[in-house]
Amino acid sequence: MVKDMQGRTHTCGALRLGDVGAQVKIVGWFDNLRKVSKNLGFLILRDYYGVTQVVIETEEMMNIVDGINYESTISVCGTVRERSSKNAALPTGEIEVVPEKIELLGKCRYNELPFQIARSKEADENTRLKYRYLDLRNPAVKDKITLRSKIVADLRASMIAHDFLEITTPILTCSSPEGARDYLVPSRNHPGKFYALPQAPQQFKQLLMASGFDRYFQIAPCFRDEDARADRSPGEFYQLDMEMAFADQEDVFAILEDVLPPIFAKYGVYHTASAAPFKRISYLEAMEQYGTDKPDLRIDLLVQDATACMADCGFGPFAGQTVKAVVVSGFEGTRKVIDKLCADVEVQSGNKAYWFKVDANGDFAGGISKFLQERKAQVTEALGLKPGDFIGLSAGKKSAAQKTAGVLRKMLGAACPAHMKTDRYEFCWIVDFPMYEIGEESGELEFCHNPFSMPQGGMKALEEQEPLEILAYQYDLVCNGVELSSGAVRNHDPEIMVKAFNLVGLGEDDVKAKFPAMYNAFCYGAPPHAGIAPGVDRMVMLIAGEESIREIIPFPMNKNAQDVMMGAPATVEPKQLEDVHIRIEMPKKEENA
Amino acid sequence: MVKDMQGRTHTCGALRLGDVGAQVKIVGWFDNLRKVSKNLGFLILRDYYGVTQVVIETEEMMNIVDGINYESTISVCGTVRERSSKNAALPTGEIEVVPEKIELLGKCRYNELPFQIARSKEADENTRLKYRYLDLRNPAVKDKITLRSKIVADLRASMIAHDFLEITTPILTCSSPEGARDYLVPSRNHPGKFYALPQAPQQFKQLLMASGFDRYFQIAPCFRDEDARADRSPGEFYQLDMEMAFADQEDVFAILEDVLPPIFAKYGVYHTASAAPFKRISYLEAMEQYGTDKPDLRIDLLVQDATACMADCGFGPFAGQTVKAVVVSGFEGTRKVIDKLCADVEVQSGNKAYWFKVDANGDFAGGISKFLQERKAQVTEALGLKPGDFIGLSAGKKSAAQKTAGVLRKMLGAACPAHMKTDRYEFCWIVDFPMYEIGEESGELEFCHNPFSMPQGGMKALEEQEPLEILAYQYDLVCNGVELSSGAVRNHDPEIMVKAFNLVGLGEDDVKAKFPAMYNAFCYGAPPHAGIAPGVDRMVMLIAGEESIREIIPFPMNKNAQDVMMGAPATVEPKQLEDVHIRIEMPKKEENA
Repeated sequence: MVKDMQGRTHTCGALRLGDVGAQVKIVGWFDNLRKVSKNLGFLILRDYYGVTQVVIETEEMMNIVDGINYESTISVCGTVRERSSKNAALPTGEIEVVPEKIELLGKCRYNELPFQIARSKEADENTRLKYRYLDLRNPAVKDKITLRSKIVADLRASMIAHDFLEITTPILTCSSPEGARDYLVPSRNHPGKFYALPQAPQQFKQLLMASGFDRYFQIAPCFRDEDARADRSPGEFYQLDMEMAFADQEDVFAILEDVLPPIFAKYGVYHTASAAPFKRISYLEAMEQYGTDKPDLRIDLLVQDATACMADCGFGPFAGQTVKAVVVSGFEGTRKVIDKLCADVEVQSGNKAYWFKVDANGDFAGGISKFLQERKAQVTEALGLKPGDFIGLSAGKKSAAQKTAGVLRKMLGAACPAHMKTDRYEFCWIVDFPMYEIGEESGELEFCHNPFSMPQGGMKALEEQEPLEILAYQYDLVCNGVELSSGAVRNHDPEIMVKAFNLVGLGEDDVKAKFPAMYNAFCYGAPPHAGIAPGVDRMVMLIAGEESIREIIPFPMNKNAQDVMMGAPATVEPKQLEDVHIRIEMPKKEENA
Repeated sequence: MVKDMQGRTHTCGALRLGDVGAQVKIVGWFDNLRKVSKNLGFLILRDYYGVTQVVIETEEMMNIVDGINYESTISVCGTVRERSSKNAALPTGEIEVVPEKIELLGKCRYNELPFQIARSKEADENTRLKYRYLDLRNPAVKDKITLRSKIVADLRASMIAHDFLEITTPILTCSSPEGARDYLVPSRNHPGKFYALPQAPQQFKQLLMASGFDRYFQIAPCFRDEDARADRSPGEFYQLDMEMAFADQEDVFAILEDVLPPIFAKYGVYHTASAAPFKRISYLEAMEQYGTDKPDLRIDLLVQDATACMADCGFGPFAGQTVKAVVVSGFEGTRKVIDKLCADVEVQSGNKAYWFKVDANGDFAGGISKFLQERKAQVTEALGLKPGDFIGLSAGKKSAAQKTAGVLRKMLGAACPAHMKTDRYEFCWIVDFPMYEIGEESGELEFCHNPFSMPQGGMKALEEQEPLEILAYQYDLVCNGVELSSGAVRNHDPEIMVKAFNLVGLGEDDVKAKFPAMYNAFCYGAPPHAGIAPGVDRMVMLIAGEESIREIIPFPMNKNAQDVMMGAPATVEPKQLEDVHIRIEMPKKEENA
């Protein structure tokens, strides 16, 4: 509750039956006036906390409010009265205020707005963003921003309760040698040199570990000059960045398993979240059983391998390929629904999906069933089929067959309420990513993910194991099929780092060139350390149940990286460019055409 | 307390007498080894939480630790034993660990460091910043960063407890038309256009008020491309930015009077802070009584006007000038001390200071006393002089005499323990700043401070009052003579804004040109609102008792706006410049010479 009332005696969400008879002053936006006659009307006053009905009962008072445009701010002094017809849907619905005095505080000049406040979400996005200050007056829009603030505040409080120290790292820093495109900031004092905004505080947090800090976190602003997507705002985004000294991956897991579920359950559109420990799934197992490294565990279906029992069945697309199957009980799709599903799978995965059914008698029917009739017993046995089952199939090279089956699994889950719990947040860890892979383009050994993760088994593994079999202490956090973050036990040992680089034909110079400060620091004695950085925006979207990232950012840029309300980016004065020693070099016409 | 131990059983700050006999594993940095003989030595293990003594009692164990450089990270498994000679100064000073196994975790390659960790503050600043990760291992350095984190966490928690919502505003935004120099960020998608990093979230927070939010705050990163000072880091700084809807200045005061003193008292080098309400001093009164609008209220001296009793005393520098006096009892400075004090005042204020004393008999002596002998009674009466008083004097135009007297007051306070309480934080509000002044250069009416503050009396005052007599709802928060922030009740009414601009010969176009989004928003109905933004860095400096801002920033830039550890700013690839449509224009040689 707001404790002091800033001139007002109550907020617009505060008055109750117990206040009847009280003299009050409430302030807010003139939301609406329902005029019954020239001396009777119902005015709705709205502030951040709620709405209160003000009943206009005199012609004089009606003249005053008639002279004020909606969306002006006003103050109302009056007496609280019990309503004759109560509104149970409204916290203040049992009372109304009979005004003695109404004053204009901030005039809205316009009789007509770009959109109706309460229906702002229906306006086109550009108009909403241009008039974001009106859009945000819509309680449904504002509530998402309030929700974001509360989630972030709770994340902070929980991290602090887990003995993490929030340390703010520099925003004006260096360009990174790899990763996404950097935002550059020309330097005034150092002509020809540039700061860059950090893509993440990765180097700084590892330097903090080498500096002797033990448990670091930060709600960290990150900057990548990438194009927008539904779940990615151009420009800036936030992550719950964390790192722990003398820690392994289980230590990191234990923290997030403790921090995240209560916050998801408290604020989420679903009120249940996985309890600790979250399921751990190795990368290979995830690809095998879920056809993806971002499995949605709300779906209870698994991918099965059907290569042995089907590849040689005579159906052309299966010949010599890996075949994967997703078996679903209780799927009652019509032929039309099945065709649509297969078409959708093809759109999403780039590969065809196939199917057949087991009828009530245990016979195969539909789809590619005719190729399987002769081996019915074998297939039934291998896949554990029962009457009524629907079998979705994919085929191709192993990874393509897996991925297509993963899409099939997801779509069949979404189509079968019995196979998908939609009312909960299901977290899991994907672990044991391979350290190396053979590059698709190069055909050579390459780092699979982050070259700075610690190989499992350390130096010994690098010296003795087959490179493709070396696993990394690298992990992903996944919730309801959405990847929230990658993390890793870092390679804190310069010698192991150099050895890991040697295997892909690089050397110490390459390690140093990439992250010189970090490499130098590690040569002065670093602790083993591990961390992760779940995306705040993505977590808030999941919790809020929003599909568009712009709904959970107070002042988002549009998809074209513009703030149309502020007019950013904008032209600047020639003097400003001169000060920082740059000039504009417009793209050539032919490149632009 | 760190709850899970990441492989270690205890931190290096945890073990006590009650743990004697326990098998433990501790990890940390090899801080030191005091070698008594080839099979006796005392190893100090250091982590974030403290230090623990490990006693080496065998030649075999000595050989192991002899092979490890200081500052390597190691793990020690062993048994806790009561120390025979205890160290009461150390939390773990009653015990030691007898190791069974010592393992190297992260090797420090170097036998010699750029500086001794425990004495890093004595190293030259450039070396400290280059090896900041070693500097931060010094507990005395690290503790300031921990302190900063705790202060910021408590500020946040307190603001949230006062029903404020932390809302993050954009970092990639627009260049401001005035104020300090902006950092520019060239846009990739919009050739020739630039984002700018915000100098403060001023416009956004006022837009949030127009958007219907009620109590906003943010630990806000701010960016100004200004040169460094002792209390200003180049580049980025943080402020506790806040704004309240439907509020006046007393509402803002009440919040900070509740939020700040407990945090200053809890973490400060002084343990006492002003209780609410803080003293309010009008700007004119502050200049009159303290000779500054940043008075240090720990000093109980006041400036008195001595013009009437001294200007015509025959002392040349006083003739026709304003004369100000600071009377101090119990100041026992020798002639040499007095001369030094007067010289220091002149250096700081640019104006001469004068003096005389009242001896034990009530006679005037020293300094300019001979000019006052004839009017002794009158001067004694006017200034309330007593035997033993020392009188510091300044003369000149009113404001120069005031400012010089202000410096005198500060120096005399610092020189007289009886007149300065040094063990506390004394807050005050400076209020009632004038809205307009006659510009020193232009000779015309100009805005005195912020043109967007609300004039006291609103439209009526602008229409009816003498402009120079109009006061603004503008205020400063001052602590121990340091200005922490300016704040204001904002002008939320476009008509009053235009009128305020009219008085200085500007119009609506000028208002709109400065802050178009805010002006547009206010035309759609804005609440009266007020706010302030105390500087976080400056508050932490005061609390920590640090004179250099670089001591309270984890990774500060040097005075030349460089991060010498990371190598920022740096040259970038031509492709990066091409991507964002700029090229470098180096300053011409002759300008550089």
